Amino acid sequence: MLNPGSLSLYLCTDRKLLFGRPLPEAVEAAIAGGVTMVQLREKDAPAREFFDIAREVLALTRSRGVPLIINDRLDIALAAGADGVHLGQSDLPCFEARRIAGKDFIIGISAHTPEGALSAQRAGADYIGSGAVFPTGSKADVGAVIGIEGIRAVADAVKIPVVGIGGINPGNAASVIAAGAAGVAVISAILSQPDIRAAALALKSCAG
Amino acid sequence: MLNPGSLSLYLCTDRKLLFGRPLPEAVEAAIAGGVTMVQLREKDAPAREFFDIAREVLALTRSRGVPLIINDRLDIALAAGADGVHLGQSDLPCFEARRIAGKDFIIGISAHTPEGALSAQRAGADYIGSGAVFPTGSKADVGAVIGIEGIRAVADAVKIPVVGIGGINPGNAASVIAAGAAGVAVISAILSQPDIRAAALALKSCAG
Repeated sequence: MLNPGSLSLYLCTDRKLLFGRPLPEAVEAAIAGGVTMVQLREKDAPAREFFDIAREVLALTRSRGVPLIINDRLDIALAAGADGVHLGQSDLPCFEARRIAGKDFIIGISAHTPEGALSAQRAGADYIGSGAVFPTGSKADVGAVIGIEGIRAVADAVKIPVVGIGGINPGNAASVIAAGAAGVAVISAILSQPDIRAAALALKSCAG
Repeated sequence: MLNPGSLSLYLCTDRKLLFGRPLPEAVEAAIAGGVTMVQLREKDAPAREFFDIAREVLALTRSRGVPLIINDRLDIALAAGADGVHLGQSDLPCFEARRIAGKDFIIGISAHTPEGALSAQRAGADYIGSGAVFPTGSKADVGAVIGIEGIRAVADAVKIPVVGIGGINPGNAASVIAAGAAGVAVISAILSQPDIRAAALALKSCAG
């Protein structure tokens, strides 16, 4: 079950940005700095490795009271006992995921237009991830830049909360919230920084 | 629920071998030639595309009374309503898959040693896929050649049925069955052939 407050500072992981720093330590530092939700993204790991990482990170997020969402792989989310799954437009349909996972499982859907967001809401999504709000180099699959007006249009279209993603940093996070987003999702603005906790704190003070 | 007779001639798909022939037509021809089980393998397709293909092929296999197994992706198998999943050593653990999917869902596990097969049996697998029995070029992840003696050792170790895979053709299929396998799994021996139905018939007369 999603507590909308969990969306305020949403971290998507990318081990490639960590330059060898262990993922659990990075997640721990990010949560210490105020991250309220974590999405584990492993585009290249075999399923077993993804599952093992999910269990390790879940032990940590659960001890801190922060929900853990798995990118794409509903089966790994269910097997690991994670709190939810995040599905993109080329992933499993939301309706089918909801049918398998039940009503208490968190399902987030990527949608970049009001129509896509409404469709996800009808299919049972708990929240929308929408972007790219600003130009970004981190996440190849986030799509074209929709801008602050794009986020506002998506947030106005649906009743479920919307998280902005793409190019968000301490200098522009407040504008995303002001446009109606329930929170901001970041990758490199936290994980690429030398001090992960401080980077999360800086965002938290703008977006939280 | 697995009917062990379903394993006798087991087709694993690979669209790359079809040179543009539509997969449903290829599967239909293979079933007409005697294929008793189909495993849909899509190592490169996005989840949504894999799901759409699975639903299309499932409509066909169901109308022919042949079980459809999904390679690797338990979530896609459940979403599409397929009969089961096949998991390799780098996929989700069998025990977790069984817990999610329930007792009537078919779970096959790749195992190349008696120890691996026993472990899969304990974890709730319905059958073992074991190989490569002979050298093969079709399936990069099937591992080292274990030979007829390797299949015999695996089949002797477990109570659940074992399917041999890797380099099987009409000339050697009977030797795999004679070693204790419940069936043979093939990819190119059916899908690479100009007449798919005839290729399946030729194997069926040796292995069925």
